[in-house]
Amino acid sequence: MAGRLIEGSAIIGQSGGPTAVINQSLVGVIEGLRGLKPIKRILGMRHGVTGLMKGMANVDLGGVSHETLEKIAKTPSSALGSSRDKPNEADCTKILDACRANDVRYFFYIGGNDSSDTCRIVHEMGVKTGYELRCFHVPKTVDNDLMMNDHTPGFGSAARYVAMAFMADDCDNRSLPGIKINVIMGRNAGFLTAASALARHGEGDGPHLIYLPEVPFDVDRFVAEVEEKFRATGRCQIAVSEGIKDKTGKDIGASLIAGAQTDAHGNAQLSGSGALGDMLANLIKTRIKTPSGKAPRVRADTLGYLQRCWPEPSHVDAAEARQVGTKAASEAAQGATDGSVAIVRLSNHPYKIEKRLVKLGDVAAKTRVMPAEFINGTHDVTRAFIEYCRPLVGELPHFARL
Amino acid sequence: MAGRLIEGSAIIGQSGGPTAVINQSLVGVIEGLRGLKPIKRILGMRHGVTGLMKGMANVDLGGVSHETLEKIAKTPSSALGSSRDKPNEADCTKILDACRANDVRYFFYIGGNDSSDTCRIVHEMGVKTGYELRCFHVPKTVDNDLMMNDHTPGFGSAARYVAMAFMADDCDNRSLPGIKINVIMGRNAGFLTAASALARHGEGDGPHLIYLPEVPFDVDRFVAEVEEKFRATGRCQIAVSEGIKDKTGKDIGASLIAGAQTDAHGNAQLSGSGALGDMLANLIKTRIKTPSGKAPRVRADTLGYLQRCWPEPSHVDAAEARQVGTKAASEAAQGATDGSVAIVRLSNHPYKIEKRLVKLGDVAAKTRVMPAEFINGTHDVTRAFIEYCRPLVGELPHFARL
Repeated sequence: MAGRLIEGSAIIGQSGGPTAVINQSLVGVIEGLRGLKPIKRILGMRHGVTGLMKGMANVDLGGVSHETLEKIAKTPSSALGSSRDKPNEADCTKILDACRANDVRYFFYIGGNDSSDTCRIVHEMGVKTGYELRCFHVPKTVDNDLMMNDHTPGFGSAARYVAMAFMADDCDNRSLPGIKINVIMGRNAGFLTAASALARHGEGDGPHLIYLPEVPFDVDRFVAEVEEKFRATGRCQIAVSEGIKDKTGKDIGASLIAGAQTDAHGNAQLSGSGALGDMLANLIKTRIKTPSGKAPRVRADTLGYLQRCWPEPSHVDAAEARQVGTKAASEAAQGATDGSVAIVRLSNHPYKIEKRLVKLGDVAAKTRVMPAEFINGTHDVTRAFIEYCRPLVGELPHFARL
Repeated sequence: MAGRLIEGSAIIGQSGGPTAVINQSLVGVIEGLRGLKPIKRILGMRHGVTGLMKGMANVDLGGVSHETLEKIAKTPSSALGSSRDKPNEADCTKILDACRANDVRYFFYIGGNDSSDTCRIVHEMGVKTGYELRCFHVPKTVDNDLMMNDHTPGFGSAARYVAMAFMADDCDNRSLPGIKINVIMGRNAGFLTAASALARHGEGDGPHLIYLPEVPFDVDRFVAEVEEKFRATGRCQIAVSEGIKDKTGKDIGASLIAGAQTDAHGNAQLSGSGALGDMLANLIKTRIKTPSGKAPRVRADTLGYLQRCWPEPSHVDAAEARQVGTKAASEAAQGATDGSVAIVRLSNHPYKIEKRLVKLGDVAAKTRVMPAEFINGTHDVTRAFIEYCRPLVGELPHFARL
């Protein structure tokens, strides 16, 4: 993947669902590129490759002050704007043409596996057509579902939000007991839902039941498990992934959303609706009775978009998001022609990682899900998952009980 | 309201929906009482007057270490447990009996207007039956709807959460434009929904439309206002109170929740469901079309219980919540027989308040709503509201834009 350095401009884009720290990666790339002689200009795509294809004016990132960059880094969501489009081959030709027209020789794309695939296609197209475009994918996703990565920037902050939400909500549920359902983001991978388990610190702490997309969801078993926990303690806090599927693999949530919308990737809308939580709450109200014959107090919250944009990120995550950006720039500076930056864990105690450049094709268009050793039966995670996840979220608050 | 000091024990309870800082008030009362000679023991009710009536064992708060108390103060939700019961006269007799049985002469109840009413009834009953019980109400409510109070402890932290949520979510909406609805807590008072306006810092920032329970909600006008904003800028971030009502005063949200539950106060469930947001989102998907004839991207989040328990409170709110507790104890120490602690604002610049003891009956069972000078037309708040609310939430993050 290494070659001689080439003179030209660099362009950076952000793609897919934003995160709380995706701008850290943007700033990491910018700062890594600054001062490199062969780099003439540093440009930013507006709304990713969508803006590039449509000829939207690029942003000149070279002149942005260090002070502004530091503020941008701490601003959640994609400062350049994002895109949900999935470019096809014809689109990739347009992308390559736009790069050629701007004398762009370095292409950085911050996103998930589809962004890696875009980098791969555009790079190969450049090779075929004799226009050398060096393409680098910088990882990002709260879903934590990229191959080759121990974990992905954005996940730690979202996981921190989820863990803190469950800690606080569990206190609320102790104050006014009942059954509480919290629905968490994640279409296919349950990592974020699993992170709710980090909320447990003492005896009896929730979440008491955790439902992942990797484990087929059975309605009757769900009701039985909730009822058992509720009968024993008078309350039950439940973590449910928005991506739970029945035994045929069909999303349970998607069919419940009135006028559910589908993105360019063919994914039916799962977020931005409370329908799944409401359905499960109503199911419990109907099927479980208190000794007096009434329905128990049941509430459902859907944690929603704040999971991916809450402006107090995990410090570990923020730092790593910066580092993967810098790493992509330094690989470019050292003559690499293409690749995806991946985070590899070296040890848990002390927590230690390294960043490696891996092949675009190894990350592109593939999805990682929770490995079997992280899943504990039908409704829990393992200690191995806790050990894996804890270093990523930073220090959590310390609560006390009377 | 003043009399000689009386020897006996003190009991403290927490009632109603918890807040992020209600334990600050608990600790304030405890610390204010410690070392006072006439106070023999400091007890805590489990689950408020419900536990007291049921004979649940009280908690001995006198021996809890200062260090533990400081941790408790920073733990969200009611550490003693809360209650949603509304005691009737017969219940108040039981409460008085329980106090008599425990030699309790000082009764502190942290809660909203119903808690003030409970204090009033129990105190009057004591006077009538010749058992002197000194009763103090300590204010708490995220709804900010207590009479006699400039604002109430708990509100500032919830308002901070809402403001930060809208700031972050607005960045998300800029990244991937569309129509975004966020539903906020508040049955009758729109203060918390109005706090979303603190998220605005720069040109074009959301929320673009704010719907309060104080302004009758008209579906057609709503669709027209959203459409106008969306046509002009390609996006629209909307704050909607869960308590919006039609022109007849009927809650719009309550009828949408499958199996909606009703509390002891006769209030139909509004929180713990995404139904209102989902209905409004579907309404927009159906009624508004993009130039290509498709529905715009529409998402709804219901901010839910995290508004009242998120564990990073407003520092101003946390300090004031502590102070109202201490104030109640010091009034007791100075011989007051009954009253409610109220926060009165002395000035905005610099922000300055004082705590006063007011009559229980002036706070009891009444609700304050947004005054006319805080409401701007059908879908906004005034600058006067911003000036009023800003000092309560503490410093907000500073975001930057490219």
